[in-house]
Order: sequence, then structure tokens, then C-alpha cells
Amino acid sequence: MSGEEESGGVVSSAKLAPDLSVKRPREEEENGGGGGSVCVEMEDNNKEELACFSSLIPGWFSEISPMWPGEAHSLKVEKILFQGKSNYQNIVVFQSSTYGKVLVLDGVIQVTERDECAYQEMIAHLPLCSIPNPKKVLVIGGGDGGVLREVSRHSSVIQIDICEIDGMVIDVSKQYFPDLAVGYLDPRVTLHVGDGVAFLRAVPEGTYDAIIVDSSDPIGPAQELFEKPFFESVSKALRPGGVVCTQAESIWLHMHIIEDIVANCREIFKGSVNYAWTTVPTYPSGVIGFMLCSTEGPPVDFKHPVNPIDENGSHTDVKAPLKFYNAEIHSAAFCLPSFAKKVIEARQMNCNAW
Amino acid sequence: MSGEEESGGVVSSAKLAPDLSVKRPREEEENGGGGGSVCVEMEDNNKEELACFSSLIPGWFSEISPMWPGEAHSLKVEKILFQGKSNYQNIVVFQSSTYGKVLVLDGVIQVTERDECAYQEMIAHLPLCSIPNPKKVLVIGGGDGGVLREVSRHSSVIQIDICEIDGMVIDVSKQYFPDLAVGYLDPRVTLHVGDGVAFLRAVPEGTYDAIIVDSSDPIGPAQELFEKPFFESVSKALRPGGVVCTQAESIWLHMHIIEDIVANCREIFKGSVNYAWTTVPTYPSGVIGFMLCSTEGPPVDFKHPVNPIDENGSHTDVKAPLKFYNAEIHSAAFCLPSFAKKVIEARQMNCNAW
Repeated sequence: MSGEEESGGVVSSAKLAPDLSVKRPREEEENGGGGGSVCVEMEDNNKEELACFSSLIPGWFSEISPMWPGEAHSLKVEKILFQGKSNYQNIVVFQSSTYGKVLVLDGVIQVTERDECAYQEMIAHLPLCSIPNPKKVLVIGGGDGGVLREVSRHSSVIQIDICEIDGMVIDVSKQYFPDLAVGYLDPRVTLHVGDGVAFLRAVPEGTYDAIIVDSSDPIGPAQELFEKPFFESVSKALRPGGVVCTQAESIWLHMHIIEDIVANCREIFKGSVNYAWTTVPTYPSGVIGFMLCSTEGPPVDFKHPVNPIDENGSHTDVKAPLKFYNAEIHSAAFCLPSFAKKVIEARQMNCNAW
Repeated sequence: MSGEEESGGVVSSAKLAPDLSVKRPREEEENGGGGGSVCVEMEDNNKEELACFSSLIPGWFSEISPMWPGEAHSLKVEKILFQGKSNYQNIVVFQSSTYGKVLVLDGVIQVTERDECAYQEMIAHLPLCSIPNPKKVLVIGGGDGGVLREVSRHSSVIQIDICEIDGMVIDVSKQYFPDLAVGYLDPRVTLHVGDGVAFLRAVPEGTYDAIIVDSSDPIGPAQELFEKPFFESVSKALRPGGVVCTQAESIWLHMHIIEDIVANCREIFKGSVNYAWTTVPTYPSGVIGFMLCSTEGPPVDFKHPVNPIDENGSHTDVKAPLKFYNAEIHSAAFCLPSFAKKVIEARQMNCNAW
């Protein structure tokens, strides 16, 4: 993995499956199903020489985090395909026995081949189907390419910028997740490897119709993407009536984080501020949410999509059809259980039309 | 646990927290967090003397089943509160560190205090809010009492019958889950301990306005509740335009089971046949579905509830307010991801109104 790619340079074209200069797992780790834990050997000389990949179930990956104490989802590991440490995080790819290939960043599942459709399709189409003719789209994070794949289904789009901080994520995805990294093949895509916060600050005011923030959790490299100055930059980079969709955690687990995000967004976004959510089985609690906001300008009614996807409009022919998203599930995503509604929908988010 | 209660007798009144004649866990098992597996000692002399409660993670409960191969959800155990073997299944109650008390039947989580609201409220109110003035309601299974608690929110209801096969589940719930078993306090409730299939066969034709089938998975004592003869009995026991709601597994995991259920229901129920779903974090894949069908007669449009809940109408004052259900989430529950819609909604279940 070259240091240049991780330090903020611009790589404008991308090809699938480059040779990765990262080390391969040891033979005994590739089996995955033995009696001991599957461990990841670090590349630097930190005090912790081995970060246990699964400290709980031998031969399984267990997702344990202070973000969801007292519970763990585990997947049976067939084979470890990749492990490395970038400048930002630990990266593991394994072949699971029933969820396809799995991408893990700092011990947290980001993508499984079996259920990634739910997350990628919803985070992309909830904002893009809510405004007519989106043209310029920015993706922050999302280095695996899955969101790009979805954005590029929209034929009105002429420019797709992506700013991912961790070049190793991009290369790993191109090697192991071609169905996600296919998004990079679209000629409208320009890849910027660097810090999304700094990138946004440099964007001329009013540039984008839509910004999609596909971040990991607010512990680790994505922390700033949940803070107020970042949302202020997003707002400035959007045109009037432009929209943002950010990953916004789980109503079952992170109500206090969501409350903070909602409060920040209400201060900053003078159009509409909405919370939507979807099922993703391999995310903690089985759901993930999104903040959907618009800037002052032409009003945006996120709950009633105005811009259906033309499945023939894609610029590349290698994408599979939509698996998850449709107009009904778009609207349904904004309806919340009462316990969450009470906190989130104090004012703006009535589902009156139902 | 008395054998009479399990063999099909009728117990018409119920009080909370009876003395249970079941044995308490051994001291060393109560700690739950030691170095070894937490095991359940069987009460009979089967070949397997110990059924491991968690064979994989010491101090944690792991839910492993051929129904969801290759994955496991685990909860940290603070203390085992109860373990027993009824005539039908192994029953465990433990205090988890972050999900409250947990009821486990044959190794599968049925209820956690933290997320039970989603399941109980949806399985009860999806059918009962879809018809005007339900009067007679039958619950099959649901021995924990949570569905009764929800049914009894409906002031129009004059008769609530419940037929649960396993008396030990009822008594365990009364002892450890008073917020569920509170449902038994309603004077409209009549408890029948026995086989739901046999019970239904003996019900005079056209008796009930609504039948709710709160079953465990189709492996074990609930198997018959997923088969065609059972649905035929349900249909006969309902009045014209009466409704049934049955637990119907996960679209992420059990599409083939769901397909069979849908096919059976389409043959048998001449009104409408619909699939709805909801989030329940501690159920496999984080979601659970419901089949909602009506018999020939006054048409039922499940997607547009006609019978809101009068939260002041309850006959008992000890129930907490609704946490999950509302009219918007009722309608949203019928909108499915495209991959599931394709299979399930071939004909009847368009979300046209959205």
C-alpha cells in the first residue's frame, strides 16, 4: 500500500483489482475453523502485537465494541482473505460461511456481500430520489465503492466526486469486492484520497446537489464526520435546496448520538431535517439510520420521492439490478417506532400523508 | 411444574408470580461470567445429560441454530435466573448485562425486556387495528403473556382466549417477566393450557374476530402451526372477514419457509393475504415477519388501519404506554424490499397507496 495514496493525493482514474502490496495471512490463519482464536498480526510495533480478530468464538469473527456493550454478532469464518493495517485502521476481509465476503474495519463489520444492498441502495437513493435531476454528487467515505455503484444508476448525474481517507480500503475493495468497486468504473467518478473534512472546506460554495456521507462509527477516523463544523461545511458545499444523507447509527442503540446529530442538523440545515432507517442484518441491532437534510431553497419532501430510478440509465452495464430499494420502502423508511419518534420527530418529521 | 397443566387442562384465572416447583440453578452457574460454559442440567435421564447453554463463549449466551447457519447473536449473561425442562422444551431465563431479562426456549431467544415491545405490539395491533371493533380474540402460543397485554389495550374486546401448550412457559413468565405476564390479569382472559391445533379443531365455526399465532420457530413444538391443516382450522374458527396474524420468520433468512406459508395462506384465506415485518434486534437477522390474512367476508385492508388504540380503554391500569406501535409504522410494515416483494407480493400485496 503506497503512502502517497493515503496522504491526500488525487487519483482520478481507477481500475479493478490492483495488486496489493499488503501481506497475506499466514497459512494457519487461513483455515479459520480451528480450536484457537483467529488473530491479526500488526504491521507496526505497537505494544499490542496481536489484536485478536475473534476473542470469543474460535473460528468465528465476533463483533465486540463499546458502542454496543453486552452483545456481539458472530459470523463463521471460512477463510481469512486479507489483513492489514493502514494509517487509519485495521482492515480485514474474510470469506464467511453464509454471508459471502466480509469487510471489517477496526473490528466492525462494514459490508457483507449478502446484505450490503440494503445499506448502499438506501443511503444513495433516499437523497437522490428526493430531488429532481441531481447532477453533481459528492460521496464522503464509502471507499468500498458501493455507494458510487448506486449513485451511478442515476442518469441525470454528470459528476460524482468521492473523498475517502483510507486508500487501503479502496484497494482492498477493488481486490475482494468487485461488485462494490464496480462503482469506480463509471467515467463520471473522480476519486480523491484524503480527509473529507478538509476536502469539503475547500469546495466552492453551492457546488453539489447531493452529498452522501458513508462513514464508519464516530469512534475512529470518522469521528469528525458527526460534529457540527462538518455539517456546516456540508451545508455550504450544497446548492440551495441541496440534500445531504449521512449514516446516523441505530435507534435501538444510539439514541443519544442521534439526538445530538438531529440537534446539530436542525441548527444548520434550514430546509428539512429527517431521520430514516433500514434493516441491515449484520449491523448492530440489525438496523442503521440516516439523517436526511436539505438546505434553504426549493423545498424537499424526503418522504415522497420525486425522482424514480431509470434502471436503463446507467453508464456502465456491469451492475446488477436493484435488490432492495423501491419507492414504497423509501417512504416507509421515514416512519419510526414511537419511542424513537418521540425523541427525533418532535417537530419536523410527521408522517402526515400516511 | 405440575404435569396436569401441561396436558391440556383449562386454568381460567391466573395470578402473578406463583411459586415455581422447578429447580434453581447451581451456585456456580449463577455467576455466568467464569471461565467455563454455562450449562443446563436436564431433569430427565436422556442420553445427553448436559445441554450446553453456551458452548462457545464462557459467560455469554450464544444463539446458534440450523435455522440461521454460520451466524450467532450473543448476549452477556449476568446471572442465570431459571432453567428447566418442560414436556416440550428447554427453558432458560437469564439476566443479561444490557438487554434486561431474557427468555430462551430450546436455545432460541423469545423475549428480551429491552426489545419485546416491537414484537408484542406489532403482532397484536397489526391485526386488531385492521378491523373495526374486534370482540373475540384467540391467542395461540404467546404463553409469556405479552400478546395478551397488547390485546387488552383494545376496549372493544370482550373475550380473550389463549391456548399455550407449555404451562411452564406461563409460570416462568409470571415469575420473571411481570411486565409481560400482566396480560393475564385482565378479567377478559381465559387461559387454556394445551395443544393449539386440537383446541382450534374444537372451536365452533366463525367464533373469533381475530386469531394471533405467537409461535416459536417451525423446529420444535410449534412445527404444526406452520402447516396447512392448521391454517384451515384457523380459517374455520374465524368469522367472515375475520383476521389472523401469525409469526412468519425473516425475509433475510427464511424466504423458502415464507414462500410456503404464503402459498398455503393464498389457498385457504379468501379475503386478503399480506406479509408485514418489523425490527426486533435480538431475533436472527434483526427482523421478524407476520402473515396477515382475512377470511371471505367484509374486506380487510391491512395496510390502512381503521381501528386506532384507545390508550385509556384498558381494563387494567398496570400497563405501560405503547412504546413501538403507531399508525404510520403499521402501514410501513407492509412495504418490502424488492428482493422479498418479488417473491411474496406477486399478486395481492401492492403498496399502491404510497
